[in-house]
Amino acid sequence: MYGAGDVRVENRPDPKIARPTDAVVRTLAACVCGSDLWPYASMPVIDTGRPMGHEFLGVVEETGADVTGLKAGDLVVAPFTYSDNTCDYCAKGLHFSCRDGGRYGFDGVDGGQGEAVRVPHADGTLVKLPVAADSALLPSLLALSDVMATGHHGAVTAGVGTGDTVLVLGDGAVGLCAVIAAERLGAERIVLAGRHEARTGLGREFGATDVVAERGEEGIARIRELTGGVDKVIEAVGTRQALDTALGAVLDGGTISRLGVPQYEQGPIGPAQFLRNLTLTGGACPARAYIPELLADVLDGTITPGRVFDRAFPLDQTPDAYRAMADRQVLKALIRP
Amino acid sequence: MYGAGDVRVENRPDPKIARPTDAVVRTLAACVCGSDLWPYASMPVIDTGRPMGHEFLGVVEETGADVTGLKAGDLVVAPFTYSDNTCDYCAKGLHFSCRDGGRYGFDGVDGGQGEAVRVPHADGTLVKLPVAADSALLPSLLALSDVMATGHHGAVTAGVGTGDTVLVLGDGAVGLCAVIAAERLGAERIVLAGRHEARTGLGREFGATDVVAERGEEGIARIRELTGGVDKVIEAVGTRQALDTALGAVLDGGTISRLGVPQYEQGPIGPAQFLRNLTLTGGACPARAYIPELLADVLDGTITPGRVFDRAFPLDQTPDAYRAMADRQVLKALIRP
Repeated sequence: MYGAGDVRVENRPDPKIARPTDAVVRTLAACVCGSDLWPYASMPVIDTGRPMGHEFLGVVEETGADVTGLKAGDLVVAPFTYSDNTCDYCAKGLHFSCRDGGRYGFDGVDGGQGEAVRVPHADGTLVKLPVAADSALLPSLLALSDVMATGHHGAVTAGVGTGDTVLVLGDGAVGLCAVIAAERLGAERIVLAGRHEARTGLGREFGATDVVAERGEEGIARIRELTGGVDKVIEAVGTRQALDTALGAVLDGGTISRLGVPQYEQGPIGPAQFLRNLTLTGGACPARAYIPELLADVLDGTITPGRVFDRAFPLDQTPDAYRAMADRQVLKALIRP
Repeated sequence: MYGAGDVRVENRPDPKIARPTDAVVRTLAACVCGSDLWPYASMPVIDTGRPMGHEFLGVVEETGADVTGLKAGDLVVAPFTYSDNTCDYCAKGLHFSCRDGGRYGFDGVDGGQGEAVRVPHADGTLVKLPVAADSALLPSLLALSDVMATGHHGAVTAGVGTGDTVLVLGDGAVGLCAVIAAERLGAERIVLAGRHEARTGLGREFGATDVVAERGEEGIARIRELTGGVDKVIEAVGTRQALDTALGAVLDGGTISRLGVPQYEQGPIGPAQFLRNLTLTGGACPARAYIPELLADVLDGTITPGRVFDRAFPLDQTPDAYRAMADRQVLKALIRP
């Protein structure tokens, strides 16, 4: 990406092992993330371009001397950040904060939207997939790299459990995966707030029991009318309006878990929220921590998050994939190198 | 209270049963709360005065026709708000949000700093104390009405458990009780931030393992030097500086529980906090929910929160009690009608 709206497919040097803990992964499937649309909308022009993409799965091509858990030919999925899986934060399941971790596309590490990626801390990062490279499960396995893990993070941090009523704000891929996650953790009633009918329709198939298309005060009124207020909110948008809707719909003592990166710096955490005993939680998902558990459910067909991919693009049409997602013609674009 | 700095002891009509669920309690002991010092510092002048006090224990003098769990002569402690103990919020242990609850000193209900109080929802509110009216435990039992319950709320909502390192911000009565609570729930290391030596000394006796007198950036550096950062913070001050200290001292993935009513409306809940997976929780304590559990520990001497009362005043010297607390000459003033 060279700036807002400017995505180019170019030849880059082939990735090579740089450190003994690296692996090179030949990409089989990648995708465009909702979070890629923020720079696509607003990134200042840069001369050098920035490698894009942080969700991919593929085949290990080469491993560094210290990599013991992987070998060439293994099919693997990459969580959306790399991590050593040994530091104190990783030990707590907080891989996003890994002391020696980082993000694809930065610090000389390739982006996932390409033919191959050098993955640092390969042993700590990559998760082996016990399927063939032509498995029909690949889209759902790819979803584990970010959106399904992130939806799950929202449900876990919101404390969703059996019998709960949960509000999911946002009908993007993360919101829809949060519906899957809430249903999987036992929620009885799942209200999905979104206005794109194809997406909310998929949300219903994933387990949403109610859909609210209204926004703002009207949306809050509708949610309260349906539920009497909710104990748990998964906020998968990131705008102040979404936070305000969450605050209006949640019951006293309730929890709001945020998954969308906030598009604001300050927010209402004054006496009004304090007196209501509200909890604000969530954050950047430690995908690596959740993949093993979710993988089992993908393999046995319990969850099918790959259904969020509603269109596939060959690698050289990646700019079209961005455009289609930015225009909301495509929910989530799969990229096949 | 007739305005900032203007507390008067006056004759008011004797409380009478107004509703069949009321009880009238003859006050044996009451106290001045840190939160009473906010209006004492800033309340606009009013002609009618406002009855003050929300922490008291005493003897039941009379009960309404529908009160079944209490009778005249029972010694009881009152949580700092009244509640029906039957609504959906009370059922969740969220008595502060009781659908039919309220605060002493408002809506025709007496304040606790007086000779007698009409207590609405007596069955749902008051907790019987199995001791004599001259028991030496009275100060610690009185502490259950607010400060000890509130400190416990902080430890519970912060998720304090065995082996934890906990930071308690504030050496007021609530902060000191939060030390008791954190120690009681198994914290291994408790860092108390405060600069009043008599108070932090009591904090050490309650279980604080370290005391940090520095504030702001210096305080954060000192806490990080001592602990490497903490997973749990109990913020018992309420200022933006205290919140900033909490944010600076807490580790990624950590929890900040607020007990002091925030003296700010907006605060930092943007991308920086989101990416760190911080949880902001706490709020107004549902004292009624916690009293039975804490009462047992007061009765058997496991905890002695009454030690926060460092001076007793007769009722007619209540104005002196406010002044002494506002001047920080007294940590917490006991009032004996």
